[in-house]
Amino acid sequence: MELTQADRQHLDKSKQDTGSLGNTDVGLKYDSGRVAHDFSCIHSKDLLPAEDGEEATKHFLQELVNILLAYINKSLKRSSKVLDFHYPHQLKEGLEGFSLELPDQPDNLEQLLVDCRDTLKYGVKTGHPRFFNQLSTGLDIIGLAGECTYESKFFSFYRFTYEISPVFILMEEVVLRKMHSIIGWPEEDGDGIFCPGGTMSNLYSVLLARFHLFPVVKTHGMSAIPRLALFTSAHSHYSIKKSAAVLGIGSENVIVGLVPFYVNATAGTTVYGAFDPLNEIADICKHHGLWMHVDAAWGGGLLLSNKHRVKLQGIERAHSVTWNPHKMMGVPLQCSTILVKKKGLLQECNQLCAEYLFQPDKHYDVSYDTGDKSIQCGRHVDVFKLWLMWKAKGSEGFEAQINHCLENAEYLYYKLKRRSDFQLVFKGKPEHSNVCFWYLPKRLQSILPSPERDRELHMVAPKIKTKMMEEGFTMIGYQPLEDKVNFFRCVFSNPATQREDVDFLIDEIVRLGCEL
Amino acid sequence: MELTQADRQHLDKSKQDTGSLGNTDVGLKYDSGRVAHDFSCIHSKDLLPAEDGEEATKHFLQELVNILLAYINKSLKRSSKVLDFHYPHQLKEGLEGFSLELPDQPDNLEQLLVDCRDTLKYGVKTGHPRFFNQLSTGLDIIGLAGECTYESKFFSFYRFTYEISPVFILMEEVVLRKMHSIIGWPEEDGDGIFCPGGTMSNLYSVLLARFHLFPVVKTHGMSAIPRLALFTSAHSHYSIKKSAAVLGIGSENVIVGLVPFYVNATAGTTVYGAFDPLNEIADICKHHGLWMHVDAAWGGGLLLSNKHRVKLQGIERAHSVTWNPHKMMGVPLQCSTILVKKKGLLQECNQLCAEYLFQPDKHYDVSYDTGDKSIQCGRHVDVFKLWLMWKAKGSEGFEAQINHCLENAEYLYYKLKRRSDFQLVFKGKPEHSNVCFWYLPKRLQSILPSPERDRELHMVAPKIKTKMMEEGFTMIGYQPLEDKVNFFRCVFSNPATQREDVDFLIDEIVRLGCEL
Repeated sequence: MELTQADRQHLDKSKQDTGSLGNTDVGLKYDSGRVAHDFSCIHSKDLLPAEDGEEATKHFLQELVNILLAYINKSLKRSSKVLDFHYPHQLKEGLEGFSLELPDQPDNLEQLLVDCRDTLKYGVKTGHPRFFNQLSTGLDIIGLAGECTYESKFFSFYRFTYEISPVFILMEEVVLRKMHSIIGWPEEDGDGIFCPGGTMSNLYSVLLARFHLFPVVKTHGMSAIPRLALFTSAHSHYSIKKSAAVLGIGSENVIVGLVPFYVNATAGTTVYGAFDPLNEIADICKHHGLWMHVDAAWGGGLLLSNKHRVKLQGIERAHSVTWNPHKMMGVPLQCSTILVKKKGLLQECNQLCAEYLFQPDKHYDVSYDTGDKSIQCGRHVDVFKLWLMWKAKGSEGFEAQINHCLENAEYLYYKLKRRSDFQLVFKGKPEHSNVCFWYLPKRLQSILPSPERDRELHMVAPKIKTKMMEEGFTMIGYQPLEDKVNFFRCVFSNPATQREDVDFLIDEIVRLGCEL
Repeated sequence: MELTQADRQHLDKSKQDTGSLGNTDVGLKYDSGRVAHDFSCIHSKDLLPAEDGEEATKHFLQELVNILLAYINKSLKRSSKVLDFHYPHQLKEGLEGFSLELPDQPDNLEQLLVDCRDTLKYGVKTGHPRFFNQLSTGLDIIGLAGECTYESKFFSFYRFTYEISPVFILMEEVVLRKMHSIIGWPEEDGDGIFCPGGTMSNLYSVLLARFHLFPVVKTHGMSAIPRLALFTSAHSHYSIKKSAAVLGIGSENVIVGLVPFYVNATAGTTVYGAFDPLNEIADICKHHGLWMHVDAAWGGGLLLSNKHRVKLQGIERAHSVTWNPHKMMGVPLQCSTILVKKKGLLQECNQLCAEYLFQPDKHYDVSYDTGDKSIQCGRHVDVFKLWLMWKAKGSEGFEAQINHCLENAEYLYYKLKRRSDFQLVFKGKPEHSNVCFWYLPKRLQSILPSPERDRELHMVAPKIKTKMMEEGFTMIGYQPLEDKVNFFRCVFSNPATQREDVDFLIDEIVRLGCEL
């Protein structure tokens, strides 16, 4: 397949960008004497399983590693941008030769490597130390290694039978048992499952609670049981409402309602990072026979810190817990668990015993075929990267990393407290790594709080954010909440972030916003 | 960290196994003059983002590629085993130094690389040309490249806002539009989403149908609407029943019931690979105003083949379609879609407009923030590997691959038809790549069909499968279904499988079973 003139120019440009891929199409020697490979005249059909495809596959994967390394390096360089923003129409028009359209004939490997590099280039570098925009940040090489290793196994996991995934089934058992013991549940109890995200974990908790109280709902539906009500706090994650909508309970039956059956307590709310009083809630649940769920998706990581786990006192009294290692523990997304105190309930609630999937007449203990516990049939193996990272860091490594993030939050908090051009949303020290604040441009600093001032203040954060994204040196999120106008929320979960990055963020907000 | 004597022995053994990792702990030169790296005294904290971590990271990732390459090569060698079976207790006891337990202190990188290699070693090589056990098989280097590239971006996707995932949002749009047009929906219609597996895709279809007919269910739950009934065939996937259980409809309300609202037609059943008559079902749905869903998780790939797409005639009349590119198209798991004909319904059904996630006052078109369309909040980027593979193969490459798989099925069918020691479950030529059959050991070949013979025959497949797994040269699934005793189901979705592998499978079954 011939490259067009535009392709060629694109490649020429690429060379200047990374220095890596650029070498490969001209047959130059690079690195420690290895001869570079020409990918422009080979296609995916020339890679393994093609006969004699071994060499080409090796060179292709090595080139990919070069691209990934260049990207990772760039992500971690403070001098590089966090993002290179383009509007949807720009990307769709095919920026600098990057075309999203799907061809009828195969592209060559040169083009595919360029596509991989461009895909990384036009994305947001969420592993950058100055990316503060979301709860899950950072970049863990061991987690990457775990994902790539597991991906090379491809399909060897999806059924979650021991037959197909012997190692991952046992890894899941080991990791879940460890998480149970950290929560404080007795060893012989406990069950759980990795879920596609925290919303699914929370959905499982509502599903289990409903089944636990009214098993008939599984076969005969909601018409066979009384109308139900769920309790949760105003700042809990929207997944609780979403679960109620999906499960046929109705989102309006959250909080107020008829037969109370479920209370969600949040350990680390999304915006403020606040913790519900778990012991008090457990007392009420015990008194009224309600299912107690703790949504510790964001706060669960603090259980690994001797200094901070006090904030989750009482979690061991919960019936179920959502805990996302992809948030505070820095595991590559996604890695989310639902942990259940009562053994067997997950299986009983979800199994349908499809004979062609789960044959009872196998030659090993079929209780290791955990596939029927989940709602979905095939599952992504999210346990391996967590397991590998746990081996790499040890529990102590996770503890140090989490303490470091909370120290960054405290550092930002004390810095802002001293300044008159910033205003904290809460006076008290943050419980989690969330720090919420307003920035006051010069002209608003001298005006006393009033509805007029708030209307002006509401427009400050979006304006700063727009400039911030167009320039691309850092990223932070903002939102309004209840009676509070748009404020910034800074969260720390990236171990690479240091005090100098916190200083940079403050300076950058001032630079972009002082004249607004 | 000192290696124990057992560790050292373990490593010594490893060297003989792969020849790759083995070199790295003794500082020998290997490959084209590169000096091997000593990983035994460095830890994950020495990798990036550590200062000066670049070299170590590079060597670590390169070593990982060597391990992956060795594994891929082994997976594709017909002379190597498909699996190396161990019982759960063997793996849990720590086979040959492979320990699943989680440490408090970090392991060194040498040990982690050994762990990666062992994890691959003790798994099932589902990319092996003689693995016939499941619908999703094969091993695609481009798919692997897509996964690894995307994983190196880590968190840059999970919210599914354009802000965070500009490229993937647009890729999803392009790929879904392509799939719509292949189904035959008008260009201006159509919506869809990538799901964590086909069960979730089917669950979405029931959820959407219910919402479409009774929008009040979202806020007020099932008590505000009449009792519902779903229709599906006896051989449809169990996910339809599971969806009914999860959504509060009740699994018993599938098939018979009260207010019919939803019909599931299956295009490619799991065991037999059979296709429901889509046009006839569409006529009935149209007449009664029912939602028509086509579960084409397994059969959808045939839409890409001019020769075979006739089997799905009428699919363009469906309201929603489940199509899993991770099955017949060979995309690494998982990659599953729910495609919806009516635009806007997905959003309307699932959105809860959490302000802190989806700010309306952004500086770009917020219709590209597709996060609120899905049930879960964060999503795994499953589109990228499909997109990259489409570029690599072109539509024509997919067509050739799918035709090849169906030719293998036909080859097996004609071979078995001619033999007296095998009996086909169905006389007709297979519609999909599923071939179902019994093997008759010598002593059963001369006995006429009878309940006694069936009782004996029922035990043949499990016995052969047990021997097959313990020896590990090939894998094939079996199951009973309705009045049919245990029979083998062979499926073809791996492009690497050739006629010689089909021959091998038959010979192997005869070798293991003839004396039973």
